[in-house]
Amino acid sequence: MAQRYVRVQTPEGQIYYGLLQLNRGVQVLDAPPWLKGQPTDLELKPDSYQLLAPCAPSKIVAVGKNYAKHAAEMGGEVPQEPLLFLKPPTAVTAAGTEINYPSQTERVDYEGELAVVIGERCVDCTPEQAQSKIWGYTIANDVTARDLQRRDSQWTRAKGFDTFCPLGPWIVRELSPGARLQTIVNENPEPAQSALIEQMVFTPDVLVSYISQIMTLLPGDVVLTGTPEGVGPLQVGDRVRVEIEGIGSLDNWVVARKAARL
Amino acid sequence: MAQRYVRVQTPEGQIYYGLLQLNRGVQVLDAPPWLKGQPTDLELKPDSYQLLAPCAPSKIVAVGKNYAKHAAEMGGEVPQEPLLFLKPPTAVTAAGTEINYPSQTERVDYEGELAVVIGERCVDCTPEQAQSKIWGYTIANDVTARDLQRRDSQWTRAKGFDTFCPLGPWIVRELSPGARLQTIVNENPEPAQSALIEQMVFTPDVLVSYISQIMTLLPGDVVLTGTPEGVGPLQVGDRVRVEIEGIGSLDNWVVARKAARL
Repeated sequence: MAQRYVRVQTPEGQIYYGLLQLNRGVQVLDAPPWLKGQPTDLELKPDSYQLLAPCAPSKIVAVGKNYAKHAAEMGGEVPQEPLLFLKPPTAVTAAGTEINYPSQTERVDYEGELAVVIGERCVDCTPEQAQSKIWGYTIANDVTARDLQRRDSQWTRAKGFDTFCPLGPWIVRELSPGARLQTIVNENPEPAQSALIEQMVFTPDVLVSYISQIMTLLPGDVVLTGTPEGVGPLQVGDRVRVEIEGIGSLDNWVVARKAARL
Repeated sequence: MAQRYVRVQTPEGQIYYGLLQLNRGVQVLDAPPWLKGQPTDLELKPDSYQLLAPCAPSKIVAVGKNYAKHAAEMGGEVPQEPLLFLKPPTAVTAAGTEINYPSQTERVDYEGELAVVIGERCVDCTPEQAQSKIWGYTIANDVTARDLQRRDSQWTRAKGFDTFCPLGPWIVRELSPGARLQTIVNENPEPAQSALIEQMVFTPDVLVSYISQIMTLLPGDVVLTGTPEGVGPLQVGDRVRVEIEGIGSLDNWVVARKAARL
């Protein structure tokens, strides 16, 4: 089994990066692994910690319409250049946590995605250089208020609510060849999304290179590589799971957010 | 003169928050002032430090078309709700630094703006509550690659290049009533932009309240409140200054960015 890199919080509020052990204990590292964190003597027992999102990005750069069949279902084509947008870091939430259904929307969609974690400062990189700056891979759900996305010219509100970026549960160093991404709602035996990662149009190295021509990527930053076809709505009470072969599965459930004041 | 709150770096690379003294020395604080930083015994002599942007935001939430005459010059109306977008933290640059003119664009515009600095965690706030979470005010230049903004559906690339968010030079606690914002290019006696801050449509308290219904604002986060009419292009070699009465002036100059590889 590939090494799994986690970020955890203890009941005392201490936050650590670590390696997940086979017994579900965590070997604590003295720094994020991409900053050459080394194992310490501290090992957290199973069930003595809470899993956080596996990194704390200074920014999340996301890519729209990066699978041809998803671009088609959204009524368009794959753009000639990557279509970038940002999600705020406050949108990040861990595996096993709640997705808030805000009162401002009547249509909240899942979007299962491969997430790339940057390991080194990356500016004006070629795709080859970019590949070496990618530290690992995890899973994301680019949750989107579809009605607001269609209404607003910019997607910031539709994709920027707190909890709209489930991320995790851990990071692995390598992608499995031929890996499939699946999104499952409420254990429905028919996956809502099912596609091969390799069907994406702009690959992770090309995306990271492209972004690095615009904005410096920093260690721990995250690139969301776009969702395949099959996006659809979530309801309050739903459980949603995004799985990628060779990484794991990212589970969250949907709760009503208290009425906003505006 | 109103107290001026700065963030500085010493030649040794130490970063401090501080109070700017009349002699241009800096009284160092032991934490950001919005986290109740208190004066220490350390005072930096004039010219012994470099001014940084006065805060290090975890996110920059910006607002489009928030002055009626600017909305009109862009060929539209003021939106019924604030039009939000994000600039990445890597876009921030200090007063007195360079704005890079990227090779991907042929039209880079200045956009002088009032910037609001958040002092306290802010979620689901009313405008009254939001006002109490605003710690102070500074000046921003929401630099925009206008051709890319018109070409891309999302503004992330056009507004997200490194150095496209000059911010500073310092923070003051209060806005002066009737304060005017002016943008001056190359000391031209005719300001390129000149408008009263109070002409903005959605005021800072309303903007912070609105944003806080969507995403949690954190101490040190920045809200850019939109630019008035008069936006226009910058050329390599230009100096651009954004002034707001009662705050100060934010000076930057434009340099060519080396050719990108893509």
